This record gives sequence, C-alpha cells and structure tokens, in this order.
Amino acid sequence: MKYNFSEKVTHLQASAIREILKYSADPEVISFAAGSPAPEALPAKQLEELSAQILAQEPGIAFQYGVTEGYAPLREEVKKMLTRRGCYDPEYDDVIITSGAQQANELSAKVLCNEGDTILAESPSFIGSLNAFKSYHVDLQGVTLESDGINTEELEEKLKTGNVKLVYLIPNFQNPTGNTMSWEKRVKTFELCSKYSAVILEDNPYGDLRFAGEDIKSIKTLDREGSVIYSGTFSKILSPGIRVGYVCAHKDIIQKIVVCKQVADVHTTMWSQMLVYRFLKKYDIEEHIRNLHSVYEHKTNLMLDGIAQDFSSRITYTKPQGGLFIWCELPQGTSTKEMVDFCTCAVRDHKVAIVPGTAFVINDTDETRAFRLNFSTPADDKIVKGCQILGKLSKEMFGD
Amino acid sequence: MKYNFSEKVTHLQASAIREILKYSADPEVISFAAGSPAPEALPAKQLEELSAQILAQEPGIAFQYGVTEGYAPLREEVKKMLTRRGCYDPEYDDVIITSGAQQANELSAKVLCNEGDTILAESPSFIGSLNAFKSYHVDLQGVTLESDGINTEELEEKLKTGNVKLVYLIPNFQNPTGNTMSWEKRVKTFELCSKYSAVILEDNPYGDLRFAGEDIKSIKTLDREGSVIYSGTFSKILSPGIRVGYVCAHKDIIQKIVVCKQVADVHTTMWSQMLVYRFLKKYDIEEHIRNLHSVYEHKTNLMLDGIAQDFSSRITYTKPQGGLFIWCELPQGTSTKEMVDFCTCAVRDHKVAIVPGTAFVINDTDETRAFRLNFSTPADDKIVKGCQILGKLSKEMFGD
Repeated sequence: MKYNFSEKVTHLQASAIREILKYSADPEVISFAAGSPAPEALPAKQLEELSAQILAQEPGIAFQYGVTEGYAPLREEVKKMLTRRGCYDPEYDDVIITSGAQQANELSAKVLCNEGDTILAESPSFIGSLNAFKSYHVDLQGVTLESDGINTEELEEKLKTGNVKLVYLIPNFQNPTGNTMSWEKRVKTFELCSKYSAVILEDNPYGDLRFAGEDIKSIKTLDREGSVIYSGTFSKILSPGIRVGYVCAHKDIIQKIVVCKQVADVHTTMWSQMLVYRFLKKYDIEEHIRNLHSVYEHKTNLMLDGIAQDFSSRITYTKPQGGLFIWCELPQGTSTKEMVDFCTCAVRDHKVAIVPGTAFVINDTDETRAFRLNFSTPADDKIVKGCQILGKLSKEMFGD
Repeated sequence: MKYNFSEKVTHLQASAIREILKYSADPEVISFAAGSPAPEALPAKQLEELSAQILAQEPGIAFQYGVTEGYAPLREEVKKMLTRRGCYDPEYDDVIITSGAQQANELSAKVLCNEGDTILAESPSFIGSLNAFKSYHVDLQGVTLESDGINTEELEEKLKTGNVKLVYLIPNFQNPTGNTMSWEKRVKTFELCSKYSAVILEDNPYGDLRFAGEDIKSIKTLDREGSVIYSGTFSKILSPGIRVGYVCAHKDIIQKIVVCKQVADVHTTMWSQMLVYRFLKKYDIEEHIRNLHSVYEHKTNLMLDGIAQDFSSRITYTKPQGGLFIWCELPQGTSTKEMVDFCTCAVRDHKVAIVPGTAFVINDTDETRAFRLNFSTPADDKIVKGCQILGKLSKEMFGD
C-alpha cells in the first residue's frame, strides 16, 4: 500500500543525534554525542529505596489510572519549588505534570499555533523542540544567538511582522551552544514580546546545573500578565528515564494543555510522579542540586582542558558555567560540508561521536561550521582520550 | 493577556467522563463511570517484585534515556505475542512501544491526516480517541454501530466520498457499547477499506478480557498489504498507571510514528517497559489473562443480574462477553435532555455516577438516549447497591 502521510510529518526526519547515537552501540566508540546527565550524578540508590516504599505502601495509586493534570501531591511540591524561584504566581498561574519537558514544549506549540503561524527560536537550537514545532506545520524562523542571548534587534524586526505566536528560548546553558542569556537581554526580550503580544516559551532544563558564576533569574519572574510559559524537568537532576517534566503558565493555557495531554497519553506514569514527589519530600532538592555541581564542574573542566591542550588552535569554543554542552566552531571559511566531513570522519574512522551543527539549524539549508560536544555522559578517561583523538584529527584537517 | 489558541484545540473540551469522575472524589459516590480495570485483577505483587529486581540489577537502564522505538527486549516479546495471534508479519510489519494505546491512536492520526481529511469512527465511540482525532482538526464522521459491528452499507457510502484516510474501530467489547464485531463484518470492512484505500486503525484494548464465547480473530490477521494499524495495551491486563501500549503496522507507518513520538515524549518510561518485559518473560501471559476472566465474568454477571432485577423493564442493555462496559438505552422517545437529567440526578441526588451517552457521540449535536455503566472498578457490594439505586430512580422516571 502506498501511504499519503500528513504533510506536517513527511518532511520530518529522525533526529541526526539519534542517528549518530546508533554508532554508540559499538562499545569502542567514545560518545560526546549524547545529551544525558552524568550517570554518577543520578541518585539511583535513593530512587530505588523510594520506589520500594511506593509499591509496598501505595500500589493501588501507582498501578491505576491517575488524573491528567498530574499526581496532586507532586503538583503542590512543584508549585512550592517554583514559588521559591519566583516562577509561580498563585493568582493566575497553574502547573501540569508532563512526560518530560519534551511534551511540555510540544503541547505548548500545539495549543497556541495554527498551521502557518510563526514561531521564533534561537538559531541554532534544540532539535527536539524544533522538530516538535515543525510537526505542527508552523512557520519556524531563527533569530541569531549571540554569546549573551539572541540578537534583540533581529528579534524585534521579526516580531514586527505581526504573526509571531511563540518565541522559544533556552536561556540557561543553551542546547547546543552552552550560552547563557544575560539579564539585560531577558528583560529586553520580555518587553519586546509583551509589546508585540507574542508568548515566550522559556525552556529551562539545564538551569540547575550551574557550577560557577551567578544565577540569573528566569524570564518567568518578570511575568505579570501570563505571557510566559515556563517548562522544566527532573530529567537532568533526578533521572531522564522516568520522564517527568512540568509546565507553569497562566491557568487558561494550562487548561488547554490539559485537554491536549489527555488525548496524548492520558497522564504521566504514576510511579514516576510518585517517585519525584517522595524525593522532593524526603530530601532537600536545592542541596541535592548543589551536590551535583562538583561532578559537572569537574567534567566540564576536564573537557575544556582537553580542548585547550589538544585541539587545533584555530577552533574556537564556548566555556559554559553549567549545563551539558560545549559548542565548537571550525576556522572561518570552513564550509558546512567540511564540518560534516570532520564529524563523520571522527566517528567512522576514529570512533569518537560528536554532533554536527547541521542537527541544530532552523532550516535544512542553513550553513554552519560548528559541532557540539557533550561532557556529562562519557567517563573521565574517555573525555581525555576523545579530546586527544579529535585534537589530532582537527590539526590534520585544519592545521595547528 | 488574551490568548489566540489554535483552532484545533479551541473546540476541545475536557472529557465529560473526567468531569463526572470528579464526583468520585466523594467517597460516598458509587462510581460506574470509570474505565479502569478491576483492581483485584492487577498483578501488583508480581510487579512489585519485578520492579525491585529491575532497580537492583539494571538501574542504569531504568533511569537513563532510552530509544524512541522502545526497550528492545520488550519490542521482541510484543512481536512474539502478536505473531502467536497472527497480527505481526516480519516481512513488512514493525512494532513501536507507546505511552499507552491513547498515544498509539493519537500518533496514527497525526502521521496520516492533514487538517480536513476524513476519519470514520463507530458512532458512538471512545471519547479519548475521538478527541485525539479532533485535536488535528480532521473531518470526523460517524458510522452507525450495530450489535455486530458498524453498518457496512453506510461505511461504503462514506468511503465512496474519497477523502477517508482512516477508519477507527474497536472490534472487541467496544467502548462504550460492549458490542463485538462479527467475523463477517470484519472481513467485509477490511475489503471495503482496501477497495477505497483507507487505512484501518484497529484498537484492541479489551480483546483479552473475553470470559465467554469464542475469540474472533483481529482484522489485522487479514492484512497482507499494510492497510491495518493495530494498537494494543497492557493497561487492562497488567496496569494502566504504567502507561505501556504498542502499535503494530507496516514499517513505513511505524517509521513516521517513531519520528512523531520522538517529538512527543522522546520515549516511554523505561521502568514501565522493563516491568512489562520481565512480566512477559517470567509468567505465561496467556495463562495470566485466562486467570483474569473469572474476575470479569463474576462482575459482569453481578451487574447484569442487578440490571435485570432492579431496572425499569423499559430500559434495554447490552450483554457483553468481556470488556469493561454495559450500554443501556432509555425507552424509545426519551430525549437527550431526559437522559442527561437521569445521569445528573443519579450522581447529584443519589450518589451513583454513570456516563451519559453524549460523552461518546461524534458530533456535539447528535441525539442519544443511552448511558454507559462500568462493572470492573466498583467492589461487588457497590455493584449491587448501585444497581438498586439506579433501578429505583429509573422506575420513578420511566415506569416499571
């Protein structure tokens, strides 16, 4: 049978990252391509204990259907956490638990956007969200990302066109660049979006993973009229495999997201929600997060040292104070094809997997000479060895 | 801020069932309104043991990211199970694990339908799927459901219009009616859909729960060209709270569903998938299913006896041989409003929750004098008492 697939999905391709991850099945491959939290930083033992308690004490809740909005005690704990961070206002905000922040971002686009509506995103940005938006056949446009956040002049130019429904931002340790948006740009971006009635979707999966520098408050803390949707996740601080994220936004938006989540997966796995709830009740989450920082600081510095020592000096790179990623750029004048060749050669011939920048561009035709490195997943010795291998290859291809 | 929500979601309302379920928070309410499997039939102890083994032996897999297609060992076990049932052909089929059958049905519509494309469904049908389809702004049309399946003449009339992409069917113990489609109608429906190049979405959440009569083979067993998408779930036989379902369809369709699932929730909770896998490996699933039957037979008969004994004799009802639901019809000539009044009066004044037929109509304006009863969730004494209360009310309102 010949299928006529929906136009909104025919152009969607499986994420290039996931294609490259398939190489990781080869145990000899050193993978700098993943986006997983550091395995040694996940509180597996505590979660195992809490799980045993849940299934012994409340199997009827864990194994039966729950409500779409989420496990009520967890919603309350998330609200408390967000209140501490200035991101939740009981007057007009509400919270829904989602199956990871991926679902939070996808449903935000679904409830707000008709086909053809414009979504603006940092260019480059996280492919999972970009593809989620594209799967609703929207007009996705990029705004140049600078080291301190998007270019706000360019943002205003695009907002002026009038049909922008949503502006998607990852202000902290952005994926793929590791860049963090300055407070000044957060304020400016918030004001511009308010002026042009565009809703901001603030995706903050990495904000907790800051090991150096000062925290910068969320854009959501500026929100007094319900123009910011804030999405978060427990994937990086507790476990990604349990799939628990959340959205905090104006009640009217949450109500629509609830209806869409109901038809998407009814509710998030009960056990996962109960596990997060019990963790938040038993442990001090802020202390737990602080304890993660030493792991991330160590791994970031290990990779930054490797790059400084081994890579061609013609390669530039970001020096993030948190998150999971370092963004490298090949010398000016390098073509997209040469960058892809470098990445392909690295994994195919030298067994080090990295993600070509083409995975994060807004339009398939956008040029990029960058690639993304992940330092959280590989073990320390792999970080050192992988940097040596990539360094040697980079010098061969681009000179000392 | 005033929001311009997407046109596809503005008309979606939260499920009437879930609204009524809110009454169930009152512990005095006897609920015949749910769709949950019988609590006493869930293998909670076995799942608790398997969970402890998973978290002790493979925490790294349970707590980290997995692949979108699903936990590979589980996919293999599902393929084996479907092979035994004649629903999987290794030549052209593939399987993806989903977050419940709800996601399976939603993504099937997403990959195949543009806005405005036609989906046909039994009238009445399961509100969760109907709303999922509506959330993609399709043209949803009903085909009259008879006691042995949809009216195939009406089906052909609608298929002739030419723009039908998907025909959605629940052939076994349909929700809400409890009706089962005859083998003859399955064959006829399959032939008609093939003739007019419409894909069948065969949703089979209740097929395992047959306690009487002979199994009727799935429509998928007729499929030789990839024109049937088969969705299933472990919600009714193991646990709904773990959210594990699956789709079996032609590889080309599965590939598109994978891309859409990737942007929906990345992957289904790893622990849930590992739990189902270990259950399938350790226990004989067919024997486990046979053991559930006595529970369901007992509860079905208890409610059927209660209806026969207590209800107004002017109320007609289905006598299902499995599944979760009985469908009752008020006397001919009863208006939709009178039916809704009966349901409202039952829960508000007499504390017995039932679901009005309006929850399952294809168009909000469709007339119905029916209501749905669930026998799997309430305890035995509640079934007896609830039937007495509804019976008394029905006689008051509609005569002996």
